[in-house]
Parts: sequence; C-alpha cells; structure tokens
Amino acid sequence: LAESDGTAVTARVAQFVLATDWPDLPATVQREATRGFVNWVGCALGGSRDPAVEIALATAREFSGPASATVIGRGRFVDPLNAAFLNCLASSAHAYDDTHLATVTHPTGPVAAALLALAERQPVRGVDYLTALTLGIEVECRLSNSILLAPARGNIAWYVTGISGGIGAAAAVARVLGLDQTRTLHAIGLAAAQASGFRQTHATMASSFVPAHAARCGLEAALLAERGFTCSTRILEGPNGFFAVYADPANPAAVTDGLGSHWEALANAYKPYPCGIVIHPAIDAALAIVAAHAPAAEAIESIELSVNPLCLTLCDRPAPADRKQASVSVQHWTAAALVRGAAGIREGSDECVHDATVAALRARVQARPSEKIGRDSAALNLVMKDGRRLEQAVEHCRGSLDRPLSDSELETKFLDQAAGVLPEAAARNLLRSCWDAASCTDMAALASECSP
Amino acid sequence: LAESDGTAVTARVAQFVLATDWPDLPATVQREATRGFVNWVGCALGGSRDPAVEIALATAREFSGPASATVIGRGRFVDPLNAAFLNCLASSAHAYDDTHLATVTHPTGPVAAALLALAERQPVRGVDYLTALTLGIEVECRLSNSILLAPARGNIAWYVTGISGGIGAAAAVARVLGLDQTRTLHAIGLAAAQASGFRQTHATMASSFVPAHAARCGLEAALLAERGFTCSTRILEGPNGFFAVYADPANPAAVTDGLGSHWEALANAYKPYPCGIVIHPAIDAALAIVAAHAPAAEAIESIELSVNPLCLTLCDRPAPADRKQASVSVQHWTAAALVRGAAGIREGSDECVHDATVAALRARVQARPSEKIGRDSAALNLVMKDGRRLEQAVEHCRGSLDRPLSDSELETKFLDQAAGVLPEAAARNLLRSCWDAASCTDMAALASECSP
Repeated sequence: LAESDGTAVTARVAQFVLATDWPDLPATVQREATRGFVNWVGCALGGSRDPAVEIALATAREFSGPASATVIGRGRFVDPLNAAFLNCLASSAHAYDDTHLATVTHPTGPVAAALLALAERQPVRGVDYLTALTLGIEVECRLSNSILLAPARGNIAWYVTGISGGIGAAAAVARVLGLDQTRTLHAIGLAAAQASGFRQTHATMASSFVPAHAARCGLEAALLAERGFTCSTRILEGPNGFFAVYADPANPAAVTDGLGSHWEALANAYKPYPCGIVIHPAIDAALAIVAAHAPAAEAIESIELSVNPLCLTLCDRPAPADRKQASVSVQHWTAAALVRGAAGIREGSDECVHDATVAALRARVQARPSEKIGRDSAALNLVMKDGRRLEQAVEHCRGSLDRPLSDSELETKFLDQAAGVLPEAAARNLLRSCWDAASCTDMAALASECSP
Repeated sequence: LAESDGTAVTARVAQFVLATDWPDLPATVQREATRGFVNWVGCALGGSRDPAVEIALATAREFSGPASATVIGRGRFVDPLNAAFLNCLASSAHAYDDTHLATVTHPTGPVAAALLALAERQPVRGVDYLTALTLGIEVECRLSNSILLAPARGNIAWYVTGISGGIGAAAAVARVLGLDQTRTLHAIGLAAAQASGFRQTHATMASSFVPAHAARCGLEAALLAERGFTCSTRILEGPNGFFAVYADPANPAAVTDGLGSHWEALANAYKPYPCGIVIHPAIDAALAIVAAHAPAAEAIESIELSVNPLCLTLCDRPAPADRKQASVSVQHWTAAALVRGAAGIREGSDECVHDATVAALRARVQARPSEKIGRDSAALNLVMKDGRRLEQAVEHCRGSLDRPLSDSELETKFLDQAAGVLPEAAARNLLRSCWDAASCTDMAALASECSP
C-alpha cells in the first residue's frame, strides 16, 4: 500500500489497528494508555449523577435490552449499546475529560466507553482493552488532524469528537472482536456514515450527547459488521467519502504518515479544571494572583484578560445563564477562580454561576484575543480600585503538554470525582485496579467495580 | 417572527409543526400523505427479507428492549427505537421508496418509520399520524432545499436523506408527543446533532443504513427532549449550526418562505422501478424500444444513451459486482430492461446482475451526459448489427411530476412487494387499511396488520 497517496487510507487504518500489538507500543504510549484510562473512569464517575445522565438513563431503561452492562457510578442497568452511550455521556458531562490539544478532540470517551461495554458482552483482557483503546484514539486523533490542521482546511463549527470519535471506537471494537480486514473496513465505514455533531450543541446537555452518540454508533457499527453488514471499503478516501465532506481540502496524509512510529496519543492532555480547555491559562493566572495577593472581589475595578483567539472563538460567554453555558465561559471561570481561589466542580455549579459576587466580577472581565499569545498562555491584569495593578502571565498552563498532570494529580482528580459516588475505600480500590488495568484478566470485573 | 431573515428559522419550524392541523392541509397535500404512506408500507414489505434487514434484525434482537413494536413483514420483535430503524431500513432496501426530485431526498422513510414505532408506544390516530408525517416530510424537504438548491451551494457528496431525515422525524414525533415549543426545539436540535451520511455508502447495505439511522435518531431525539434533555434552540441558524456546516452558503429562506402555503410534499414522487431515480428515463426508453421492436440482445451492436449529467454523477457504474451496486447502475438497468422487457425487483437481483446476456449487453452501453437533457428525460439509440438504428426519446419518465404513478399503479406496486411476505388476502386488507389511514382510530392496529 502506498504511504500517503490517499488511495488506500481506510485499508491502511484497518491494517494498522489489526496488526499492532501491545509490545509494539512504545513505553511512553503504553503509559499514556493507562493514565488516560484512569482519567476517563474518574470523569465518568464524576459525571454519573449529571442531569443529562439521569434523563438519558431513564430513556435508556425504557428501551434497553437485557441489563448486562455497567453504567459507571450507577449499576448494571442497561445493555452494552446503552452503556457505551451513558458512560461517555457521563465522562464528558463536566467538560473534564481529556483533550487532543491540536484539534480540541476529546478522544478517550467514545473509544473507552465502547470497549468497556464490549467487555461485558465477551471476555476482554486488560492488555487487549488498552491496546485497542490506544489504537482507537490514534485513529481518532489522526482523522481530526486530517480535517482540521493545515494543509487541510476544515470548518471549526464541526464538533470534531463527534466526527472522528465513532470511527476510532469502531476500529477499536473491530480489533477486539477479531474481525478480518474487510469487516473492519465495513465497521469503519458504518461508523463514518454516522459521524455527526457541530458546536452549536455546546453550552447545552447536547455537548455531552455528541461524544456519547459517537461511542454507541462506533460500537454498533462494529457489531453490525461482525454479522456481515456491508459498507464501502473506501469510506475515507472515496470520491464521496469522509475527506470529501468534512474538509475542503482534507489532508489524508495526516492519517497515514508515520502510522505506528509517530503517536498522536502522546499529544493528548488531561484537564486540571472542569471546563473548556482554552479557558485553563486564564484560570492558572487567576489562581496565581489569588495565591500571591488574595485580592478582595470588591476591591477589583476591572479585569483585563489577553488570550489566544481560539479561546474566544470557543468560550466567549460573558453572561452564562447556567452551568452548561458557564462550562464554556472564560469570563465565568476567571471570575470564579478570583472569588473562590479554586476551579473545581463546585466552581462550575449553578450555585457558583448565580453567586452575586461571581456574577458582578464576571461582568468586569474584558477578554481580548491576541495572536501573540499561545493556546496554553494568558495574561491577566487586575486594575484595583486603589489604583494598584496586579499582573500575572502564564506561559504554559497546567495540563498542557509542557506541564502535564502528574500521576499523583490524576489520582487526586479521580478521587475528587469519585467522592459521593463510591465509598472512599471502594474508590481507592477502583483507582488501583485502573492503574493495574494492563494486567487485568477480565475487564468486566473492573467494570463491576465501577458501580456502588 | 421575521419571514426569512434567518434569525429564527428553528423557532419557525417548530411553530409550524406544532400549529398546523389536518384541516389546514390542502386536499392535494392530504391525498399525497395517504399515497406516500401506501407507497412506504409497500416498500417496507418488499424490503423486509433483504439481507441487510436480516443482519440488523439479528443484531437488534440481541440488544432490544421489550418487543412492543412491529417489524413490517416480520412480527412484533423489537422495541420502538429498533423498529423505527428496521422499518426504514427495509423500506429503502430496494431503492424503491419515494423521492423529492429536486434534491433526491427520500423523505417518507425516516418520518413514517419513526411515527409508526411511536404509535406502538402510545395511541396515535391515523389523522394525527398523517398530519405529523406530512409536516415532518415538509420540514425534511425544505431543509434539503436549503443546503442543496441555489442560491445555496451544498456538497453533492452528502447523503441528504441522512442529513435532513432525522430532523423531519424528530419534528413529527415531537408534535405527536405534544411537546411544547422549547422541547420541540430541543428535539430538532438533538436530531440535527446526529445528522449524518454521505454517498460513499451507496451501492452497499449502508445505503439503507443511513436513512434507517435517521429514523431512529429522530425518534430518540424527541423522546429525550420529552424528558427534558436540552439542546440549542437555534440549531439551524446558530453560528456553529446546521446551515454553517452543511452548505457554503446555505439558504435559510428555503426553509421558511411560504411555510404553510407552498408544499414541498407535492414535489415528492413514487418510483415505478426499484433503483436510483435518475436511471428511470433510460429504463422507460429501453422498455419502449422492447415494446415496439423486441430486439434480440445478440442483434445489438452498441447502445448509445444520453442522460442528464446528474444521472452519471450518481449512477455511472458500468460493471456492477452485485445487486447493491446494480441498484445505482444506469448501465445495468438499461441492459436488463432491454433483455427482459421488465424492470422490477427481479431485474435488480443478483441473478440478473450475473446473467451473462445482461452482462454482455451492459458492457455495450455508452452513457453520455448532456446538459440539454432534463433529469426526467433520456435519449436511447440502439445500433443493430444489421445496421438498423432503433431510437427512443423520453421527455418525462414514468413517476416524474408530469407523469405521477396513479393510485392503481401504486396498488400494483404494493401488492407486488407484499407477495411472498403476506398472504394475498392479508395484503389486500392491509392495502385497504393504508388507503383508509386517515380514519384509523389506532395506528398500532394497522401496524399489527403489517406482520404475517
């Protein structure tokens, strides 16, 4: 097969996913597979009581098949297709999941949720789970690159996790199902035919719906292909295919170049704060000012914030009406971090959104875009009523590729989100099981540990 | 609300769907609602044993909730979400369903299937079913216009039934569920967030999968919205919404202009032949030549076919490998019609695709595009080995808006497809029930009549 002539991209993707094994993954990639899994299970626990999950769970229970699969943090309530949907819905509910920084894809949710559901349909070892997870994420991130990064010209309005996530999930599930090359192509094709979602869904429950839908679609695509349902074998590069509709032009080489040697999975980051990732530098700056000066909210005259333009493209919401809108409001999180000296789940709650002090300060945030400021940078300037100026620049925010969360920080994040969902001892046991996933003999047992 | 300034398109769509009642529909539109329903049930019967349906039904039964809903032609085997999927899958399996000619949308399947499944969840009268069906189709066809017809510039690679079908279905279901305006907007939004499919799926089982997926997504979107799942209330016109991603530019006025007075539902046509509609003029020409001259296949030297360019954009497949590829091959159907003097389900079968005489003649078809030839026209020219030339021009093919199928032709089509699925008496009773749908007191009873 040609390296990057674009004529057999789908075939190369299928081949890569079917032929790459755990020992083929560099140690750094293996390590991120586990860290990403720990982060994901924590996020699914943290979102497991979200109102969107409550509604979707009630709907799912009306239509679910035999309850063989676990809804993380809840119980074994639904069939695997619904479990894939619900667990990805939960893991993205607080916008606390991981991010492929170059494309703002949130890659782990759709793949991890589809695979965990599959593991309650048939035995799946941890090492096979993590291998498939890694390969699915790799496919997903590369597809996102192929439609969004130059020389591709994509439309920023697409919700890219919904576009590439189901395909990554289908490829991963096809591998675990042991499908042959042709059926893997059909699985990828059927998932691509369901790729969907755009950013008008943001700031509503539907922002979690889009990745959740991708998880279910990817799993079902592979299960249909397993039984012989057919699709195009050239769904990506075909003349009326994925590349033709999602970018103008797309860059197929981003999918195939360096496949198996260069790993996009290493460009995936874990969030320290439960909100849009482009907001994080502003939060870091605000928290640093609080730590250094502890300014009283009433003493602040105005707040000047300089950010990368993408921050405002995605998260310019000066007056969020509720927590969903606040999750993508740089003004909210800057103000909340200044008032509360923290930026956790509580600062993303409706209570904090409606806090009069936070709201008053939020109205004083003047956010300006600057091409000179990197995506992981920000400059915050507080003008105080007494004339003082408090300034803080952030070069690389926490959770960026230059300052990744440590294992210890991931543990804290996991346990914070597990609190109130699982008893503390159970949460710690589950955390240990997640770290040890590569040696797990049956991922269904680990899934069972995820419910109270 | 402004007429066509594009600022409240989604709100106007919701209002239209919620506020328009059966007596508000012109008699011509009411009549097409019933004719379209008759055509659709027939197509679902005809496709009910398709291999794609067999595979999807087996998969659905593994994951289905309580079997409360009918799979047409099969039995009450699955839950309503799966029934919506399977019935639309069946109705599109033979490419025999209806067509909104301007956009090549196949509008009835996603809406009719979603509504029939709903009718087995809660009582739905026939008049309410047909009203919602009409309004859903109207929304669907107008959305297709808004992204494909000038001044919109859309991408012909999209599979437009998948893009607009689920939204029409969600709007229709929202109406029958009695959702308020806001929840109807959320239903439309959640369906739009799942809009998907492109034409690389054609010529495979996935060409039926795309509309089937739209049916299920539309139904589920409305059921989630009913329980309070939220989405953007401006999913169509919002800056990162439907219009922004599916065309460049879109034409929102095509959705709103003349809403309630001009009916796109009247621009919907029923097929006389089970294949891509752009092939139909060539079939008419071939059948006319057979009727007039009965040329022996061996006596034909070459076949010159002039067609509208869209015919070749969609259906230029000189050497189809199987019946799915043949369903979108103008060369196959021209040859098959010449050899067999017919163009029905049998001429679309694998047997006919592999018939040596048909294959030999297929290879002699030279199809050429001509801008001078309308979409419902064709010119066929047979050069015989003895030097004769047999020519036939078709100005408006059967099933076009100028030559719509009569009620009697629809009945014949229905009964042909029901043969082998239902006993003849049952098929005739069901046909009568479909014609009488407007006075049906419970559509679940009609759904029951659809299975053996």
